[in-house]
Amino acid sequence: MRAAVMYGAGDVRIEHRPDPKVQQPTDAVVRVVLSCVCGSDLWPYASMPAAGTGRPMGHEFLGTVEETGSDVPGLKAGDLVVAPFTYCDNTCDYCARGLHMSCRNGGRYGFDGVDGGQGEAVRVPQAAGTLVKLPAGADSALLPSLLTLSDVMGTGHHGAVTAGVRRGDSVLVIGDGAVGLCAVIAAKRLGAEQIILMGRHTARTDLGREFGATNVVAERGEEGASRVRELTGGDGVGKVIEAVGTRQTLETALTAVDDGGAISRLGVPQYQDGPVGPSMIMRNITLTGGASHARAYIEQLLPDVLDGTINPGRVFDQGFSLDQVPQAYRAMADRRVLKALITL
Amino acid sequence: MRAAVMYGAGDVRIEHRPDPKVQQPTDAVVRVVLSCVCGSDLWPYASMPAAGTGRPMGHEFLGTVEETGSDVPGLKAGDLVVAPFTYCDNTCDYCARGLHMSCRNGGRYGFDGVDGGQGEAVRVPQAAGTLVKLPAGADSALLPSLLTLSDVMGTGHHGAVTAGVRRGDSVLVIGDGAVGLCAVIAAKRLGAEQIILMGRHTARTDLGREFGATNVVAERGEEGASRVRELTGGDGVGKVIEAVGTRQTLETALTAVDDGGAISRLGVPQYQDGPVGPSMIMRNITLTGGASHARAYIEQLLPDVLDGTINPGRVFDQGFSLDQVPQAYRAMADRRVLKALITL
Repeated sequence: MRAAVMYGAGDVRIEHRPDPKVQQPTDAVVRVVLSCVCGSDLWPYASMPAAGTGRPMGHEFLGTVEETGSDVPGLKAGDLVVAPFTYCDNTCDYCARGLHMSCRNGGRYGFDGVDGGQGEAVRVPQAAGTLVKLPAGADSALLPSLLTLSDVMGTGHHGAVTAGVRRGDSVLVIGDGAVGLCAVIAAKRLGAEQIILMGRHTARTDLGREFGATNVVAERGEEGASRVRELTGGDGVGKVIEAVGTRQTLETALTAVDDGGAISRLGVPQYQDGPVGPSMIMRNITLTGGASHARAYIEQLLPDVLDGTINPGRVFDQGFSLDQVPQAYRAMADRRVLKALITL
Repeated sequence: MRAAVMYGAGDVRIEHRPDPKVQQPTDAVVRVVLSCVCGSDLWPYASMPAAGTGRPMGHEFLGTVEETGSDVPGLKAGDLVVAPFTYCDNTCDYCARGLHMSCRNGGRYGFDGVDGGQGEAVRVPQAAGTLVKLPAGADSALLPSLLTLSDVMGTGHHGAVTAGVRRGDSVLVIGDGAVGLCAVIAAKRLGAEQIILMGRHTARTDLGREFGATNVVAERGEEGASRVRELTGGDGVGKVIEAVGTRQTLETALTAVDDGGAISRLGVPQYQDGPVGPSMIMRNITLTGGASHARAYIEQLLPDVLDGTINPGRVFDQGFSLDQVPQAYRAMADRRVLKALITL
């Protein structure tokens, strides 16, 4: 089969790789129908040291079950399924508590001999726990939105859930990338009344407005935080979803949040140390969030995707073939494309 | 009147100061019966630059109302009252949400012309909102425990509440100071099943065991965190109450906490930056806590103090007169005394 492999910063290649086969009774092989490039793929694309052996890329995919091991109850060849961005058994004590990211038998695509999602097929470990059968045909117009359940929509939802967004809240979403935009959808879905989107890329913030953002703040840093305070009568917002991951955006979040508020971080932090000193204590600010338990959220969000209540697939603004994946990375890194959809 | 005033590190003096009088209609003057020294008083005692004008000290006191302004409904001369460690109107939007530390008309004792609590009398601003009338006589044996509602017991409770302690939980309390010990009481009160107290001062950890600690860990740092993991079957605790405030104790908390867990910080951080990088995100750790909304908790905790369910006054292990307050600071700074009770 062919798949995308990264060999270093800026170096993504389409290569022939061995066809995946069932290796464990709990494996399934999925023929990929749709995949995409994640904002988090852009960090290694910017910084990965050149390596002789490449890393299979991609962790968001939707496809058709091709083959199942002997211990994959509930799935059979031909089923259309979506995969959360990490695999998991969905039965261990962590999964039972909804902490699928910490699954005792879980892992990541593209590591430890597991295929990446940006390729023709994927061997999925712990398939019965991981894959969710979709009540849709492979030709459904909903497929792009269903694909977002593998990561970006679940991640935005995780931000809103962990920030504790409730009906009537004022919420700040920092970042107009696909995760930030899905966080807008999620905050609106949970009843937020005021959703301030911080971003300066007009096409994206316009989509954010369609998704439910009530205000857009193009300014950054102190200036942006002041603007947020103005928009909230001076006190700041009760809930912040930080969907960028730099130290500066965390500082902005801390300046824009109201006393007693919560900041949920979704972006992988590009820093080791953050400003969590006395001011955060005196103001009773909570820092929460993390890597989304996407598997836990698929069933929660699926009905709203199926009935069109939410349409997160709109974050895909350009389609690519597998051969064009290197161009998709470049276009996203250059911010010419918001989120690249890969059609197999 | 006489009161304790700090002029710099190690320099606490008992001085004559003007007798407090009602200045605003919302003021009351309280004749202090009991006061105490707080662990947080030890930070300026260790580091305050020498100053010509001193700072009145103390923010925990219980006493008898002596005089009230014209707008202090519900209180009259002779009432026995306890004061939370900051004053507040108890009516603004922050107070209504339980965020009394952020009260729009609140403030701190010893600042802005307000007396400290370590003295014979205190002018209390926003008296109707701040002071809570106690259903006890000035000779009650419960007074030391009632005094802890001004800060230390409410602070321990805030740690347990913000960490989300629930029935059956495993909780780690870092620090065997008075706040840590009150956090043990609070965790037990909320139903924690396993309470691990990290401290190495045997007299204090023994009291912690009486308060409900099921395990004591004397080791610190990595070694202490490993011991906590052993005691919890390898995964660490779901809830940590961090009652010290150094970067090292925060690092210990992050190592000892289970994935998906919460760390509530109570100690005033003696650092500006903390380790809140990628690992915290991948493990979905929440950092919460802060300065306690003591006023919000007094009514919640009062019945349990009155009926003897909890006895936090046991943290006072030595009594001092007002004249002996300088010695009380020295004894606490040297860790010879856990918490000094000042009897007026």
